[in-house]
Amino acid sequence: MPSIFTKIINGEIPSYKIAEDDDNFAFLDINPNAAGHTLCVPKKEVDKIWDLDEESYMKLMAFSRKVAKAIEAAIPCERVGISVIGLEVPHVHVHLIPLHSMKNATFQHKESLKAEEFEAIAEKISRLLK
Amino acid sequence: MPSIFTKIINGEIPSYKIAEDDDNFAFLDINPNAAGHTLCVPKKEVDKIWDLDEESYMKLMAFSRKVAKAIEAAIPCERVGISVIGLEVPHVHVHLIPLHSMKNATFQHKESLKAEEFEAIAEKISRLLK
Repeated sequence: MPSIFTKIINGEIPSYKIAEDDDNFAFLDINPNAAGHTLCVPKKEVDKIWDLDEESYMKLMAFSRKVAKAIEAAIPCERVGISVIGLEVPHVHVHLIPLHSMKNATFQHKESLKAEEFEAIAEKISRLLK
Repeated sequence: MPSIFTKIINGEIPSYKIAEDDDNFAFLDINPNAAGHTLCVPKKEVDKIWDLDEESYMKLMAFSRKVAKAIEAAIPCERVGISVIGLEVPHVHVHLIPLHSMKNATFQHKESLKAEEFEAIAEKISRLLK
């Protein structure tokens, strides 16, 4: 059965899309640690990041860098952090999280945003990637 | 003034070293989220990961992949996670953390290890990188 991220990539589940290339897809986390929290996902459905072949891993990390720089430019924050955990969805995903304080890196505090806020954030970040 | 990580890389502060190449250095975090928690640090002293030039960033991520695969082979765990936060030491560092549960990813729970335990872990991981 395809993962929830594969369904998002295929458009079967809607998302606030940020960017896409041949190998990777980025969209807003709908349960964000902070506004602008983005997930970068390889289209190839692999569970653990270290099981991606080296080329796919390097492409994912290069893609994540471009997206992170756009987040940094779009969202006022101390810096944009990275987390790869993967204990919930068995499909590699790189969390890019605008950090205001350590609180945003712990996954213990979540921010509630309205649909129009997600839309505005996605538009602001994705515009910088075009 | 050189960062604490530069002092570790230069051997002015001792560390449980894991690996080193021309550009990067890996050693055990002495305040670990879990046994085997390792830091990968570029020798170039840059504060934010997204301010590394693309080549240095890609080398750091490739180096981190090699180290993570050795941690995965040396330390029984669910998977090896990644965190880049950087709110404390202004010198890029990639946390590679053996995850047993979400607890190990939050930076809220720390594990106490004795010097001989750190030594044994560093030896076990670094042997796999030779």
